[in-house]
Parts: sequence; structure tokens; C-alpha cells
Amino acid sequence: MKVEKNDRLILLTNDDGLYAEGLRTLTEVMQEFGKVVVVSTMESRSGMSQALTVKMPIRVKLLDETETKRVYACSGTPTDGVKIAINQLLEREPDWVVSGINHGANASVSIIYSGTMAAAIEGCLYGIDSVGFSLNNFSSGADFAPAKKYVREVMENVAANKLPKGVCLNVNIPSCESEQVRGVRICRQARGNWREEFEKRRDPMGKTYYWLTGIFQNHEPEASDTDEWALANNYVSVVPVSVDMTSHDYINVLKKQMNGDRAGS
Amino acid sequence: MKVEKNDRLILLTNDDGLYAEGLRTLTEVMQEFGKVVVVSTMESRSGMSQALTVKMPIRVKLLDETETKRVYACSGTPTDGVKIAINQLLEREPDWVVSGINHGANASVSIIYSGTMAAAIEGCLYGIDSVGFSLNNFSSGADFAPAKKYVREVMENVAANKLPKGVCLNVNIPSCESEQVRGVRICRQARGNWREEFEKRRDPMGKTYYWLTGIFQNHEPEASDTDEWALANNYVSVVPVSVDMTSHDYINVLKKQMNGDRAGS
Repeated sequence: MKVEKNDRLILLTNDDGLYAEGLRTLTEVMQEFGKVVVVSTMESRSGMSQALTVKMPIRVKLLDETETKRVYACSGTPTDGVKIAINQLLEREPDWVVSGINHGANASVSIIYSGTMAAAIEGCLYGIDSVGFSLNNFSSGADFAPAKKYVREVMENVAANKLPKGVCLNVNIPSCESEQVRGVRICRQARGNWREEFEKRRDPMGKTYYWLTGIFQNHEPEASDTDEWALANNYVSVVPVSVDMTSHDYINVLKKQMNGDRAGS
Repeated sequence: MKVEKNDRLILLTNDDGLYAEGLRTLTEVMQEFGKVVVVSTMESRSGMSQALTVKMPIRVKLLDETETKRVYACSGTPTDGVKIAINQLLEREPDWVVSGINHGANASVSIIYSGTMAAAIEGCLYGIDSVGFSLNNFSSGADFAPAKKYVREVMENVAANKLPKGVCLNVNIPSCESEQVRGVRICRQARGNWREEFEKRRDPMGKTYYWLTGIFQNHEPEASDTDEWALANNYVSVVPVSVDMTSHDYINVLKKQMNGDRAGS
């Protein structure tokens, strides 16, 4: 693959691994927009969040190359993959970092556990227009074809308007039939959390171990401006995500509490 | 350890492992405030971010118990440790989740990679007052004693005022001499990112591998309201952190771009 000056260079990744149907679908659509470099793991790395590989070396292997795409396997996390692609594998900084399409939604607080969104956030930290896509269907037989239309719609907007620095997009697509999707809705992250229900078991040696399972609890199921509401009502949710986690509203309160009149400045 | 109704129950964790000096220091100070349950890993799990262990079972072992503290080793990530403590190990939901003191700063965007801050964020998602502490000194011989004063100061404020739902604190302590610390400063997260410099090596079989290394780039070194500036100028930085990553400012722009007059509602 030869990257010309006018080519749009797109870095593609996910956290479900190189053989995931969602990545195959995304690779297909992204080749309509530019030249594509895929960097992902052989196996899935779900729930890796923004984890980095610091105690182990990272290995990379070129698996496939055509005139419009190149595919690498990377042993690290999704975040490692974006970092190593930008620093070692790509001929220049990519124009976009696109991640997904994840098997399963990444709405509300799931964004902070998601390897898919971590890859998009990493791209954003490099100042690159970055988007993560997820399909609200966890099953291995999920149909990603209806998602293509919305991937195109979102990326056409990114192409036309770009994204501001420090902002990436978290796109969740409902898994209903195409004709039931009611369109794209710009949302905020719903308030909620995962409540765990660890499964306690005994191994053959009689020792206890636990499996992490959990149920998402939406703290505001009626709030129609949230991503969870949009998905539940068959809308595609688009949440602009900031890499600045400061609670700006609370700064002044805390200044009064902790610094008295000095107000921290 | 018996937890009475009026006891303050404090869950303590870190990402540097059970034998880290920072955790020892924090355990000492926290016993002044209540009864302490420590849950951490035997080895360090730095850079794990909010990662979850979903493909492996998690194991827990009670290592030590006195009248005022209990110590568990947990095989999972810092986030797993908080989840399993709240759901399986503690007699009731803790009053505080306190994490650290990390060997090395977690200012600016380092918050999104940090296991220390992930543990605090996890506590916050459960609606528990949560704080992460880090010392701006990465060396194994770092002196944590001067940090005690500031841990007390921050936790006394949390005890007096509590934290709002959805907000936890990211506290970074400079590593200068006590008398040089200029006090506590309430800050916002500095804009910046880590630029990588992968070290490319060859293994004995002649195959390439990479070590992840990096240099932090502060995009606004002059901004005196940021955590990076505070640390560089010998202040303790306290950043209120929101678990809502929505870029609220950008929602209306995106509505106009993507939905025309419908404005997404």
C-alpha cells in the first residue's frame, strides 16, 4: 500500500480482535473514505480500558497488505496498538483513528472500561479526529450490516466539520432492524454504574475463585437526552467525549472549602 | 477486626502492590480516621487504567488482621479489587475509597492510564467519597513521610464536607522537602499527552520487539490553574474529577451539524 499526500490515512482498531465481524464491517466502510491500516490483537481484549503494557515487551506482525489496506497483529492493549501504530508503523500521523465496531454497547459509564473507546481517546490525545463505534448486540452472530449507514453518516460529518481538539465521539448503534432505527441523536453520557454479582466457585483443589459479572444500573432511565435512553428507543447515540475529566463546576466550591479566602490562586 | 455502626470504614488500595511504601504510609494515616481494609495485588499493576479481569477468575487471600485493619491480596486489577471488596469482602459499603500513595505523579492526562485513579473513580461510581493520592517521585527510595500532612488535610476536608455524587479527587504531592511545599492548590487537569518513544530491540531468536516508553508533553506549561503547574511550583494539586466524560459544550454544535433544525430532540 502506498500512501500519497492526498490520501486520507485511517488507523483502524478494536478490542474484539482481528477476526471480529465488527472490525471486518468497519474496514469495509472505511476503505470508501481512504487508505486503511488495521492494528489489533489476535484475541479479544475487552474491558482493558486505557491500560498500557509496561512490564512486557510488545510484538507486532504484518499479516496482510493490499493496495488500499494493511493489517497488523499487535500483542498489546488497544491503547498500545494506537501508540505503536502512530509511532512505528504508519508512514505519517493518520487523519483519523476509528475503533470498533464493538460487539456490545459502550454507553454511559461503560466508556471508562472500554478498550474500543480507549483507542479513540488515545487518538484524540494525539490531536487526531477519532471515533469509537459499538453495536448494542453482544452475541457472536450479531448483524453489523445495518450499522454501515450510520458509520458513514458520522464519518461524513467528521470529514466535513472535523472535531475540536480534546473531543472524540462515542457512537452506539441499536441492534434492531434497519427500518426501525429512528435516526441519529446527539446525547450526553447517562449517569449509572455497574453493580457486580461475583460468582464464587471452588476449583478442583478446593480453593475459592471469583468470576466478575455485573448488571448495569441506569440512574436516570427517563432522561431522554442520554445515550442509554437513545439506544433503548432505537436511536443511534452520538456522545461527544472530552479527555478533560476535571469537574470544572466543583473547582470553586473546593477552593472555598480548602483555601478559605485565598481561593487557591 | 470488628466494624461497629459508628466506625468509619475505609477501603484502601493502590496499583503499586501490597509492599509499596506509599500504601504503607497511607495505611498508617488512614488508621487515624477509621477502620481500614486494604485490598491490593502482590505485584504492581501500574498503567492498568480502569481495566477489568473478564477472561480469568479472580482470587483473594486474607493476609493479615488486627483490631483496626484487615489486608487482602487480590489477583485482579485495582478496579477489580474495589469491586470485589465492596461486593464480597467488606461487611458493608465503605465510607471512603482511598487509593495510593502512588510512586509517581498522576497529573494531567496520566489520570486516564492510572490504576490508582481508576480505583478512586470506581469508588466514586458506587457513590462513595473517593480520593487518589500520588507522590511526584518515581524512585523506589522515595520519602513518603512529608506527604502525610497533605493526606490528612485533604481527608479532613472530605470528612467535613463530603464530595458531590460523581466527583472524586486526584491529589498529587510534590516530592520536595516539607518546608518547601507551598500549600494546597485546587486545579484543573492540564492539557497534554504522552509522546511515545518505543524502544525497538531484537530477541535472541532475531525477532523484533518493542518496549513502551514515553515523554509527557504539557501543552500549556504557563497555565497556573493546572495540576502540572502546581506540581512544578511545589504546590500540592487537588483536581476534582468527574466521571461524566461528556463534552457538554460540544453537544449543541454537533446537533446543528448532524441534525439540522431538529437539533436532536
